[in-house]
Amino acid sequence: MKFNPNINLSMLTDFYEFTMSNGYFQNGMKDTVVAFDLFFRRVPNDGGYAIMAGLEQMIEYINNLKFSEEDISYLREKGIFCEEFLDYLKNFSFSSSVWAIPEGTPIFPMEPVVSVKGPVIEAQLMETMLLLTVNHQSLIATKANRIVQAAEGRAVMEFGSRRAQGYDGAIYGARAAYIGGCAGTACTVTDQMFHIPALGTMAHSWVQMFDTELEAFLTYARCYPEDCTLLVDTYNVLKSGIPNAIKAFDTEVVPRGFRPKGIRIDSGDITYLSKKARKMLDDAGYPDVKIVASNSLDEYIIRDMLNQGAKVDTFGVGERLITSKSEPVFGGVYKLVSVFDGEREIPKIKLSENVSKITIPGFKSLYRLYSNETGKAIADVITMHEENFDGVTEYELFDPQFTWKRKKITNFTAKKLLIPIFENGKQVYTSPTLKELKEYCADEVATLWDEVKRFENPHTYYVDLSPNLWNIRDKMLKEHHV
Amino acid sequence: MKFNPNINLSMLTDFYEFTMSNGYFQNGMKDTVVAFDLFFRRVPNDGGYAIMAGLEQMIEYINNLKFSEEDISYLREKGIFCEEFLDYLKNFSFSSSVWAIPEGTPIFPMEPVVSVKGPVIEAQLMETMLLLTVNHQSLIATKANRIVQAAEGRAVMEFGSRRAQGYDGAIYGARAAYIGGCAGTACTVTDQMFHIPALGTMAHSWVQMFDTELEAFLTYARCYPEDCTLLVDTYNVLKSGIPNAIKAFDTEVVPRGFRPKGIRIDSGDITYLSKKARKMLDDAGYPDVKIVASNSLDEYIIRDMLNQGAKVDTFGVGERLITSKSEPVFGGVYKLVSVFDGEREIPKIKLSENVSKITIPGFKSLYRLYSNETGKAIADVITMHEENFDGVTEYELFDPQFTWKRKKITNFTAKKLLIPIFENGKQVYTSPTLKELKEYCADEVATLWDEVKRFENPHTYYVDLSPNLWNIRDKMLKEHHV
Repeated sequence: MKFNPNINLSMLTDFYEFTMSNGYFQNGMKDTVVAFDLFFRRVPNDGGYAIMAGLEQMIEYINNLKFSEEDISYLREKGIFCEEFLDYLKNFSFSSSVWAIPEGTPIFPMEPVVSVKGPVIEAQLMETMLLLTVNHQSLIATKANRIVQAAEGRAVMEFGSRRAQGYDGAIYGARAAYIGGCAGTACTVTDQMFHIPALGTMAHSWVQMFDTELEAFLTYARCYPEDCTLLVDTYNVLKSGIPNAIKAFDTEVVPRGFRPKGIRIDSGDITYLSKKARKMLDDAGYPDVKIVASNSLDEYIIRDMLNQGAKVDTFGVGERLITSKSEPVFGGVYKLVSVFDGEREIPKIKLSENVSKITIPGFKSLYRLYSNETGKAIADVITMHEENFDGVTEYELFDPQFTWKRKKITNFTAKKLLIPIFENGKQVYTSPTLKELKEYCADEVATLWDEVKRFENPHTYYVDLSPNLWNIRDKMLKEHHV
Repeated sequence: MKFNPNINLSMLTDFYEFTMSNGYFQNGMKDTVVAFDLFFRRVPNDGGYAIMAGLEQMIEYINNLKFSEEDISYLREKGIFCEEFLDYLKNFSFSSSVWAIPEGTPIFPMEPVVSVKGPVIEAQLMETMLLLTVNHQSLIATKANRIVQAAEGRAVMEFGSRRAQGYDGAIYGARAAYIGGCAGTACTVTDQMFHIPALGTMAHSWVQMFDTELEAFLTYARCYPEDCTLLVDTYNVLKSGIPNAIKAFDTEVVPRGFRPKGIRIDSGDITYLSKKARKMLDDAGYPDVKIVASNSLDEYIIRDMLNQGAKVDTFGVGERLITSKSEPVFGGVYKLVSVFDGEREIPKIKLSENVSKITIPGFKSLYRLYSNETGKAIADVITMHEENFDGVTEYELFDPQFTWKRKKITNFTAKKLLIPIFENGKQVYTSPTLKELKEYCADEVATLWDEVKRFENPHTYYVDLSPNLWNIRDKMLKEHHV
């Protein structure tokens, strides 16, 4: 049973969204149309790219955005909201338009990954949940993709439920990890909900439950000869674990007409142990038996293990993936970028004493330019919403800060990244399957140069502004004397 | 609406719990009684203590532990579970006994914080959810308590929903933060569910929605004169934000017979700005108006700000609290410690090449010894389950590793920390209110010496073994030639 199945996620919102909304309502601004951008300022771990994720849950949230009688009563008891506003919430009906970058797409700092246009109260009320959803899943998809890159084609399994930050952290974290490239998960309910392959064989407790390790292995092999992976580090990997595993394979798996699947090592120096284990298994006639490694792994440790010749076929990655331990926050923000006065757009800017916190004003669109020659992504260009690349065959990129840095490109294809998700309240986009998203993610990451994918000090991918947008921003900065 | 309200958290379990359980079932071990301990090996951030949290959700989970027809069908499709085992799951009825340390209690490495005794399948199936629940909430309660210590009596508000790792991460994270000492949260649904005061006034978008900052402030003050806190850093804190706030207080709050509540600073050098702001407010006749600071705060930054004389009354702490950013993993583990053969207990040990990973065998109890003189906690003593301190007036503590380090104590009171939660499947404990837990936590943390509460290099609190338990462990280690 889910705890509190009646939780209304529409109420998972910062309280100020309600105070502001009531304020807009009382001041006759209920129908004022605005645009908000969801974007982030830097990639976790100082990486060169992030992976967009969470859109499917964002859509579910929006489709279910409403307020029950209990919610209204709760708000009424606060004594600060006017009855007309509470009525408005009771009859809430979503009418905004939303654009987003599809899940699995590499995304970069400062570009809008979600764009919302609609009445200010609607746009405001969504803030917390949109951020929470995209921040969480993009964090984990990004981390997973880094780990998958480090594993260089070997399988990575998500093993982190027990260390996740809450139940949804485990479930949607496993979902995001799969989009980012993981082969499967240990989390059963995630398989049940999302058909992400769940795998798992035994814990140390299984081995401890029997008088000897050998008896534990024989019993398991008899029970699961067709899918036999044995955990070999309860007592001593090389002296007892692997010899006992080989005995169990010899006597209970092979005679039944199966090949054993693998062994798992969960402690000790896995690089050293895996090389020894590989030789012992090969010598015993099991070159096809896989070695699974787990125990506080991440992209850095996996890279170093492989550099040192570790013989590992599958990595089980737990807490450092499911919490993105090396940097557990994806810093997406949600900022007002325009207010509309009828057809007229009034771009808005948020200044800051930290220059990096100054926002890019205006209701926008976003394009990725791919080289027709190499197939690689050249740059992203943020434009005003109505701009497009129709018929454009030559384009001059320029750095929005160091504008003398310019580069003319030709022979490219421009792809619109922000695609319509809701049009005036109506959903117009359906999420692909998770398997499709995972494949799409791999394909799109392959369009990035290796230099962008380095773990340390990666090349900064170009995210430029169109001349039009750049001029609007420049003018506003000058007006504000920044 | 909650997504997937039909998620069965009984299925939020590592897949190997099912393969092992089916294996026990098929090998006639279904009724074998075992004991498991949930414990952790080190305090996050190398702190001196952690705070237990999550027990209430653990109880809810256990009370709802069952498997639906859909769950059974899903498992059947895997093709590896026997029908008798699936029948067992269908008719699952919890019959184990569980002991736990109450929420809000300071807890220490290596001591059991949850102890389970029951049929092996029951004990095994609970592993993932017990760990996930206790790991998550203890992580956040611990981090919150550190931040609250740093704030030295000033209020700390939890502001992190948008950066939480999933929806439950926000909700149960806010719950744990409250137990750990936070005064409230920005998360509305947490207030609705748990009555944790939710507060919040305005974002930058409110200010940007108006032609001028002053107009934004005046409008807000007219709307909420009784609870007026203004965000002063959208353009320039000292040049426009505070002067405009004072104008709004003067013209829209005070004339209505209210005192303004506060200002909030969310960027820039808050130490510097808060001192200037305090003086400007005082000079304007608002010495009672509070200064709220937010923006990537944690215990280290708050300590340094206060050391430098920051004039902050309330700290809003977001991402670094809700994810425990400095260390986002609480490493609780769940280990088999005994198997019962009728009345006879057979203690079990998990060895490891990492000495720190060797477990403490045996079905246990846990006592905290308080000095009758100072009221301070002296040490925790882990004992075998049936041991107690009845009539003991003198006790020799000794270090379980360096056994020559001994200390005789008298004039103490022993409190049993592991209290009964379920007895043979029946719940025998009811959680106090959250407010009571928060107060209890503050009282219990006050029994720790300051040396244990240092952020860096704290004194290691004593967690000793009773001579009886120590002898059992020592004998087992010698038998295994470790």
